[in-house]
Amino acid sequence: MALRYSTRTQDSSSPFRSASPSPQVIMKGIKSIVITIAMEGEAMPLITKLGLTQQSNYFGHAAPFHCFTGTYNNYNLAIVTNGKDRKFGCDNVGTVPAALATYLAVEQLKPDLLINAGTAGGFESKGMAIGDVLISSTIHNHDRRMLLPIFVDYGVHNHKAVETPRLREALKFKLGVVSTGNSLDHVEADDALMAANDASVKDMEAAAVAWAAELYSVPYFALKVVTDIVDGAHATEEEFVANFAMAQRRLQEAVPATLDHVLGRSLEEL
Amino acid sequence: MALRYSTRTQDSSSPFRSASPSPQVIMKGIKSIVITIAMEGEAMPLITKLGLTQQSNYFGHAAPFHCFTGTYNNYNLAIVTNGKDRKFGCDNVGTVPAALATYLAVEQLKPDLLINAGTAGGFESKGMAIGDVLISSTIHNHDRRMLLPIFVDYGVHNHKAVETPRLREALKFKLGVVSTGNSLDHVEADDALMAANDASVKDMEAAAVAWAAELYSVPYFALKVVTDIVDGAHATEEEFVANFAMAQRRLQEAVPATLDHVLGRSLEEL
Repeated sequence: MALRYSTRTQDSSSPFRSASPSPQVIMKGIKSIVITIAMEGEAMPLITKLGLTQQSNYFGHAAPFHCFTGTYNNYNLAIVTNGKDRKFGCDNVGTVPAALATYLAVEQLKPDLLINAGTAGGFESKGMAIGDVLISSTIHNHDRRMLLPIFVDYGVHNHKAVETPRLREALKFKLGVVSTGNSLDHVEADDALMAANDASVKDMEAAAVAWAAELYSVPYFALKVVTDIVDGAHATEEEFVANFAMAQRRLQEAVPATLDHVLGRSLEEL
Repeated sequence: MALRYSTRTQDSSSPFRSASPSPQVIMKGIKSIVITIAMEGEAMPLITKLGLTQQSNYFGHAAPFHCFTGTYNNYNLAIVTNGKDRKFGCDNVGTVPAALATYLAVEQLKPDLLINAGTAGGFESKGMAIGDVLISSTIHNHDRRMLLPIFVDYGVHNHKAVETPRLREALKFKLGVVSTGNSLDHVEADDALMAANDASVKDMEAAAVAWAAELYSVPYFALKVVTDIVDGAHATEEEFVANFAMAQRRLQEAVPATLDHVLGRSLEEL
């Protein structure tokens, strides 16, 4: 895979495209995928398992994000993580870094499909249990209350993910709405909007990832492993910590299984 | 001013730099400024007054943002707006587009100073009145509640703006903390964090603009005109609409006065 920069002035083809596996796949199938994962802890065991290689300084000196590339069954694969905050040292979680990382990744790599993978809280009332894997139907926000009439729908937004009936059937993944907000906890106003959004899971990045992918018209879906129950008895932060290792293992199973199903198929066949 | 793209692979000098006014200013003074303004309605009267010219497709075909460039007293000036949401048609307000627009603007223009200008709600309890112009001391978030210990401070963040004692004295602008959230209204949890942040004004972009400017180590401050009183009797959306034309006029006065004070001076002289 040629690892070089594309620039905005040229309509250069993707670095991914130069290593396309076959003319048949070029004609119709998904041959390159970018997976965005906010936290290093979520991503690293998967990156190791997939044998991806870190590219140094891939997004230039200013961006804190990391890019790991390689091939999977001869198709092109990259995982992009949000890196660390320079002031506080923690992972860059939340919508702002997720949007920028996604924009830079799709700009440079021009993937055929983008998957936002990671952890989420699940709603028991929507049938979600800890360890479940959910694929997004639509993605909304629940912490952008913009009460002027022209801004209300924009605030919540309505990001339509790729339809994946065969993938979900084959891998026994659930389908549902991902609702995104910048807080790990949730207050009454969030609850009201998550209910209005018909949310099955609550995460902190998917809507921003979807927004950035849409700017480049890259098809996408979110794949979320449930680490905690939003409408349950335990505090998110306790359940999240208790179940994080399980979520890492589930991502190590679910992501390769998803790649096996998706790569080489057309969007319509998912 | 040469209007061309810089790319991340080259450490190319800014398009701004090729039109620097004098060797003295190159040595120490601020010679190029980018002003980010979220809403077209906030920006357009100012852009017209300053005689700036819209650059077509400045950030590439994917980004919705607009760039207006020109000179002011022979110094280089650009105003960047966040453009419209393609699905809903409204201005791209909130932190996600603000961060991406700022990142792309500072990447390409490499300004000596970045100013995030616009409207905000003011706290009466902190001495703010409708029509006041406030310059930021620090900038925090009030809608990123991240309760795991390593993420709490990152969520609120602590963006240090350039110090501007002489500017504020000369122009009778107030000093205070800008607290940023993605909602036009505010709920109890926001109030608690805005109080903890010692917020004088509440806006929807400054923290994201500051985050992106810091990635490129570009010095910045926020300049906010108060359109509504956060801790007053009236709903934000009503006061915002009622006072928007006033805020436009104040921006048309305050921004050129700020440029007159800032351009040619060093950061230490502000």
